[in-house]
Amino acid sequence: MANQIRQKIFKTLLPLILFVLLLCDTVSSVRKSIDLKKPCKHFVLHLHNIAYDSDNADNATSATIVNPIGLGNFNFGKFVVFDNPVTMDENYLSEPVARAQGFFFYNKKTTYNTWMTFTLLFNSTQHKGTMTIIDANPMLEPTRDLSIVGGTGDFLMTRGVVTFTTDTFEGSKYFRIKLDIKLFECY
Amino acid sequence: MANQIRQKIFKTLLPLILFVLLLCDTVSSVRKSIDLKKPCKHFVLHLHNIAYDSDNADNATSATIVNPIGLGNFNFGKFVVFDNPVTMDENYLSEPVARAQGFFFYNKKTTYNTWMTFTLLFNSTQHKGTMTIIDANPMLEPTRDLSIVGGTGDFLMTRGVVTFTTDTFEGSKYFRIKLDIKLFECY
Amino acid sequence: MANQIRQKIFKTLLPLILFVLLLCDTVSSVRKSIDLKKPCKHFVLHLHNIAYDSDNADNATSATIVNPIGLGNFNFGKFVVFDNPVTMDENYLSEPVARAQGFFFYNKKTTYNTWMTFTLLFNSTQHKGTMTIIDANPMLEPTRDLSIVGGTGDFLMTRGVVTFTTDTFEGSKYFRIKLDIKLFECY
Repeated sequence: MANQIRQKIFKTLLPLILFVLLLCDTVSSVRKSIDLKKPCKHFVLHLHNIAYDSDNADNATSATIVNPIGLGNFNFGKFVVFDNPVTMDENYLSEPVARAQGFFFYNKKTTYNTWMTFTLLFNSTQHKGTMTIIDANPMLEPTRDLSIVGGTGDFLMTRGVVTFTTDTFEGSKYFRIKLDIKLFECY
Repeated sequence: MANQIRQKIFKTLLPLILFVLLLCDTVSSVRKSIDLKKPCKHFVLHLHNIAYDSDNADNATSATIVNPIGLGNFNFGKFVVFDNPVTMDENYLSEPVARAQGFFFYNKKTTYNTWMTFTLLFNSTQHKGTMTIIDANPMLEPTRDLSIVGGTGDFLMTRGVVTFTTDTFEGSKYFRIKLDIKLFECY
Repeated sequence: MANQIRQKIFKTLLPLILFVLLLCDTVSSVRKSIDLKKPCKHFVLHLHNIAYDSDNADNATSATIVNPIGLGNFNFGKFVVFDNPVTMDENYLSEPVARAQGFFFYNKKTTYNTWMTFTLLFNSTQHKGTMTIIDANPMLEPTRDLSIVGGTGDFLMTRGVVTFTTDTFEGSKYFRIKLDIKLFECY
């Protein structure tokens, strides 16, 4: 009798239950979960910027294309375009795993402050594709977070945040920034 | 007899049902729902822009860094960098709750039209973090929608739309824009 | 007897099952599924760029606002603003279905390479709204992918990727790019 009842139950309800399971599974598989405590990808890179000073064309990786306009004493309006090497360790001479292509400009009268957008172009055995960053970069803060708003290739449709730390700042000649990259959408 | 059957049913199917519930709950909890009719956050701010005219360095919050190139009569190519105060009410003298840092430029031969990107940097008791906007800004339209593509801090990973209304436009000297911010992804 | 059991089963479990179904349905309806193999929208457009050369003000759709700074021989620092027509077919004279408003600049010492951001402004019977693109554009590659990071109107909250193919490149005068647009988030 007990077995009979069990069989009835399964015969009646199993299709429904399987359908529900399938539905839920579809939803959970197409959408990676987002947990702001736990990035789906996390890695650290180092960006190197050598400013063009008219004498170092061979080494320069960035150049001013619009000069400061003279509003205040903090380079307001200075606009810099770059194609910077990005390495795994802090050594400028290490093989780059990516290029950082974009620009920043100074936009404050009362302190050094920049706004920045650039794309990381990966071309290593490990990663191929791009990742684009856009945000304010208050460069005098010890660390600052910038938004990662999209990507292509291995990083197609990614989003996340990159924490900047200025490791080295040698006047306007050379600076190195640690990029602590946390992705919360991976596909 | 009825009770016996009920017990059998529960003993047989409850684990399955609980599992399905758990699965669904996981999915719904990691992903805040997106309902374009109902933003997860909605608030209004006011952005103030005082253009630098070489006589008002103390008050200026924006400045032209590239002049119009003379293609048409609508400022084509004029490029403006800004660090504008953003307030809760329409009064320019109110305590700013955010700064808007970014740029816009004119890009049409036949009418006044701009393209714009900027970051709202919140630093109030209520909000800390950034939110970045990027889109065309056809400034002569009564209202226009711009995309919010990312954020950090309190607005980490946010997305949404901001509706611009030009409240005041005093020639090229001062303008005030109402920012009606609707976020559809909040974490 | 069999019927009686079936009735008991339904009376007991149906509410639970309906609740689970409802829950799953809610989740799947608020969040369109993301399948990188199958865009939720896919279409092709053609972008036309006629560079201003000081003699063609009537036809020009783009203009250089900052000249190359002389770092290398590949236009490093050249900054171009545009308001380009976008058509359904390859014919420049076809009725535009959108405008592409934004800018690009050259940023490499050793080859022609640009970085680009622009907004597609749709104003046709089929589509109204915007879609914003931002990424590197290594223009000498046969195809390259750029990120679509947001949108408004019919494309509110959209994301995806656009594949560029340069169909025609007549020196610095005219170029036409095929835009193969794949959206993975549609609402």
